[in-house]
Amino acid sequence: MAGEVAIVGAGQSRFGVLKEGMKALFAQAFFECLDSVDHGMDAGEIQEAFVGSMSFGGGQLGNLAALMTEQVGLGHIPSRRVENACASSSYAFRDAWLALCSGLLDIALVAGVEKMTDLPPDRRRYWLGVSGDTEWERTAGSTFAGLYALMASRHMHEYGTKREALAQVAVKNHGYGAHNPKAHFQRAIKLEKVLKAPMLAHPLTLYDSCPVSDGATALLVTRGELAHRFTDTPVYVKASSGASEFLALHDREDITKVEGTVVAAAEAFRQARLSPKDVDMAELHDAFTIGEIMALEDLGFCPKGQGGAWTLEGQTEIGGDLAVNASGGLKAKGHPLGATGAGQMVEVFKQLRGEAEAGRQVSGAEVALTHNVGGSGATITVHIFSR
Amino acid sequence: MAGEVAIVGAGQSRFGVLKEGMKALFAQAFFECLDSVDHGMDAGEIQEAFVGSMSFGGGQLGNLAALMTEQVGLGHIPSRRVENACASSSYAFRDAWLALCSGLLDIALVAGVEKMTDLPPDRRRYWLGVSGDTEWERTAGSTFAGLYALMASRHMHEYGTKREALAQVAVKNHGYGAHNPKAHFQRAIKLEKVLKAPMLAHPLTLYDSCPVSDGATALLVTRGELAHRFTDTPVYVKASSGASEFLALHDREDITKVEGTVVAAAEAFRQARLSPKDVDMAELHDAFTIGEIMALEDLGFCPKGQGGAWTLEGQTEIGGDLAVNASGGLKAKGHPLGATGAGQMVEVFKQLRGEAEAGRQVSGAEVALTHNVGGSGATITVHIFSR
Repeated sequence: MAGEVAIVGAGQSRFGVLKEGMKALFAQAFFECLDSVDHGMDAGEIQEAFVGSMSFGGGQLGNLAALMTEQVGLGHIPSRRVENACASSSYAFRDAWLALCSGLLDIALVAGVEKMTDLPPDRRRYWLGVSGDTEWERTAGSTFAGLYALMASRHMHEYGTKREALAQVAVKNHGYGAHNPKAHFQRAIKLEKVLKAPMLAHPLTLYDSCPVSDGATALLVTRGELAHRFTDTPVYVKASSGASEFLALHDREDITKVEGTVVAAAEAFRQARLSPKDVDMAELHDAFTIGEIMALEDLGFCPKGQGGAWTLEGQTEIGGDLAVNASGGLKAKGHPLGATGAGQMVEVFKQLRGEAEAGRQVSGAEVALTHNVGGSGATITVHIFSR
Repeated sequence: MAGEVAIVGAGQSRFGVLKEGMKALFAQAFFECLDSVDHGMDAGEIQEAFVGSMSFGGGQLGNLAALMTEQVGLGHIPSRRVENACASSSYAFRDAWLALCSGLLDIALVAGVEKMTDLPPDRRRYWLGVSGDTEWERTAGSTFAGLYALMASRHMHEYGTKREALAQVAVKNHGYGAHNPKAHFQRAIKLEKVLKAPMLAHPLTLYDSCPVSDGATALLVTRGELAHRFTDTPVYVKASSGASEFLALHDREDITKVEGTVVAAAEAFRQARLSPKDVDMAELHDAFTIGEIMALEDLGFCPKGQGGAWTLEGQTEIGGDLAVNASGGLKAKGHPLGATGAGQMVEVFKQLRGEAEAGRQVSGAEVALTHNVGGSGATITVHIFSR
């Protein structure tokens, strides 16, 4: 599999509460991506587009993908929206990867876009809930903060995970966000701030949660043998895997893990012929701080139950065993739902080429992993990349 | 390309105003499809699912695909929702086709589902509009009936297309729907009824429009070389093409055609190494009657401007030059948005195997084409199939 598909360009808008609408954000990401192709690419060479988005609330709910590709002048090329909640654009990437592996396509655009902040707060709350299980969870009043709080509580009970470990995820990721000019939050925070922040759902406070962000991301992806036409330093896809999980927590055997992540990780490492210890850096889905800790365990980076301790030991910092969310993660970089998955790959593209900003570049990183989750774990992708 | 991918099973729920919810409809289609596999298939062999849906209004807006595959016991397999308005499940089919062509997958489920009638009328109107151009059309008050009325008016002005030709599309398709036990409308109608029905948007009356339907559809698709494990009579995919078009009518050079359909058709016939005259039957996107007439022309089945005359001559009836919408079409079979594209292929699967009901079986059909449109033409697919 290795070397069959490569990323040759990557771009993104800023993430945050932005004045721009969806079309402008998409165009910013697309043209930054096109301009990032070292030896140049004519937009007319792009054959097909895979656009991830929740189509959150307003803007364009149907036919969004065609509107976005029309907007940047891509003409009649086939374009579709892929929606798997917060994992939308990583599934769009997987579908582009599968398509490129067929040999029927040479060059594809993968993009993600979300405009969230143009809705009033009550509509945001509604749209934030719609990826949870409607019948058993959402309409009974649960929120994602509430669902992740259940997971966190059980994890603390079962494995002695410390409250401070959750908070440390936020501290670490805000620290890296401070060095990322595209991040929603660019200011370091102290542990006390997390612990004393307003309570969302016990034990999670405001700072255990990612923000509501606008943003767009884009990647240009080619068949591996064409990559050197476009750049001397492509980033290769070593593995792409996806999995599903029960939407409702009550259907899962154990809520201290996401079995779908375990399944997707096994498949990804099998494809890549690598093991967790070969990975230098990872972008993990930290929509809530407990999510990063569970992902460390589910992906096999540390033993089950040790994610909290591992975090407190500093193993997930740059310089530790595995640099996690050097972008700032969803927590500080921001989480424009449909743009997030491809955004993790934009980060990997920069990091593996040594182009990340000082203070957050993982030096010498050769193998990177991305982990993207839709909802409270219903849809999952794991991708592995190498220089 | 020919023979690389095959359909080995197909099923669908009834289309119509149904009491069942989304989960039940999906399960009906899925299990009918699984049971239709002649030599049997274990559901555990299905490796990946591609689910087309608008997620119209209620039910489950995010993570729908995982919920549906969970519902029928497909466990952790990767599942994603593909959304291109009314062309959602034909794009889901295209993505499954691309994935199967990679050789990385052997067996995929393609499905479509929509529950439309559980919303009150004002919310239905809202959701019906969301696939049009939001900025320039929808929020200015236009509806799809209004947009198609503009196309019809211009077509009549430019080519002398008769009002009766539009009406005849409805008469023909209701006639075939009368023989389809899964159709939303199963009663033949007379020309007078169409002409005298309440006006929607001049010149289109109520009977020039498809209904608002609930429904679900499912297909089991395999790599071609595996097809005979499952059936002696697979249906092969000879071509899959997609195209995009400007959402807003004012951006198109000529509104008497959909250029995206012209582009997709050229690509499909190139792939299949066939020409329009080789096609025995077609399921065309007749959300409004003018849509079928324009599609006949855009796909090259008759000269530009002759779609109306061709229809009045009976060339699109069974026994004519090309049997069009022998299922009843969107017009009479019904149009549960995201379920429609895969539903056209369910029809093709039955027809090419000689399994359609008496009164609408196209005898000896060997080559079939499906044409599925999202919105007023923004997203288009064309697929060609053979026995």
